[in-house]
Amino acid sequence: MKDSLIYEGKAKRIFSIKGDNDNYIQEFKDDATAFNGIKKDSIKNKGIRNTSISTAIFTFLNNKGIPTHFLGKISENEMLVKKVEIILVEVVCRNIAAGSLVKKFGFTEGEKLEKPLIEFYYKSDEAGDPLFTDEHIYRMKLATFNELSVIKNLTFKINDLLKDFFSEKGIDLVDFKLEFGRNNGEIILADEISPDTCRLWDNKSGKKLDKDRFRFDMGGVEEAYEEIEKRLS
Amino acid sequence: MKDSLIYEGKAKRIFSIKGDNDNYIQEFKDDATAFNGIKKDSIKNKGIRNTSISTAIFTFLNNKGIPTHFLGKISENEMLVKKVEIILVEVVCRNIAAGSLVKKFGFTEGEKLEKPLIEFYYKSDEAGDPLFTDEHIYRMKLATFNELSVIKNLTFKINDLLKDFFSEKGIDLVDFKLEFGRNNGEIILADEISPDTCRLWDNKSGKKLDKDRFRFDMGGVEEAYEEIEKRLS
Repeated sequence: MKDSLIYEGKAKRIFSIKGDNDNYIQEFKDDATAFNGIKKDSIKNKGIRNTSISTAIFTFLNNKGIPTHFLGKISENEMLVKKVEIILVEVVCRNIAAGSLVKKFGFTEGEKLEKPLIEFYYKSDEAGDPLFTDEHIYRMKLATFNELSVIKNLTFKINDLLKDFFSEKGIDLVDFKLEFGRNNGEIILADEISPDTCRLWDNKSGKKLDKDRFRFDMGGVEEAYEEIEKRLS
Repeated sequence: MKDSLIYEGKAKRIFSIKGDNDNYIQEFKDDATAFNGIKKDSIKNKGIRNTSISTAIFTFLNNKGIPTHFLGKISENEMLVKKVEIILVEVVCRNIAAGSLVKKFGFTEGEKLEKPLIEFYYKSDEAGDPLFTDEHIYRMKLATFNELSVIKNLTFKINDLLKDFFSEKGIDLVDFKLEFGRNNGEIILADEISPDTCRLWDNKSGKKLDKDRFRFDMGGVEEAYEEIEKRLS
């Protein structure tokens, strides 16, 4: 069924499909990287867990009317997705201060933000995925003003939906990264949503249940992914 | 006349004045640093040159109705300036692509921008002066929405004025960094404007007449500062 490899990222591979020009297969790998590829390892069963987790989240979002690339889970580590032209902007949405907000901008970790904060990062391994602004995006012709407006509105909607979704499962959605793509003239949510791309804290104990356990050698990495998969199933 | 040292930066010192609560003395040093302090040296007569150059530019801007902290030159390397509370936002305005636009965002050096581009950087040596956005500035309470609007408007006005000012002297104003401060409830232009804070290219030969000669060991550093001083006097 898989035809040729279209794209290989740090944690995923995208394949074209023989006889199907509209869709792709998105395969989840166990490989994990951090700090722009400086730290590399693999996390046992991460591909399988993230396929389940992303499936649960995309199914939820599709049912809520969010346009996404997700069509269905086709094996333990593969999804069928709509073909998109990926927009080279990583969209981060934050509810609680963590990561670079703390390290670079002096926020206190765990501090609740008054309103969600959207940030844009240039999706470029070579440049190190730097923070940039709407103005850079327009000048670099990565997206138009209208496309970026759609992306912001969708991101706020997805945040509202996912905050509740995770909250019901005893999890605080601290922040997350989204990627969008163009499909038949429409902007749709693409990529994955998983502990690789979100900060997820247990809302009682504050325990981190995401990739920060891998980034900062906190131990219990596999167990964290397993715990998220369990709570979402 | 100088009382106590209020602030020492990489290239300047600010002193309070005995018996004068409204003003400061701004002294220009020969010290030069680049890449967030990793490269350090001194440039002969830079303090004197930058005092003359900043004096010429601030005098011009004052005459054009731009509110600035500049009151007068009081010695070869000192200015009298109004006391301000510095806003911790470095405002960069670009007309032609250079520096980080090329290195991080794939612009071609020398490419004319369709419209001037304003960028904000967090004035923090510790954080490495990172690029950030209006939203970060509001959340960090560094400036209000109204203050930032005033700063943007002033920056575009200053850019229009200085582009012409330098053009008449055979110089392309590629980009420059401004700092603003609060003085009696008003936002005014502070800091300096000099080859330390601008990219200035000869508009015939394209020769760089600014701190990039120091940053990238291009030679002729002192001569470049001297040349700018000469053209502005």
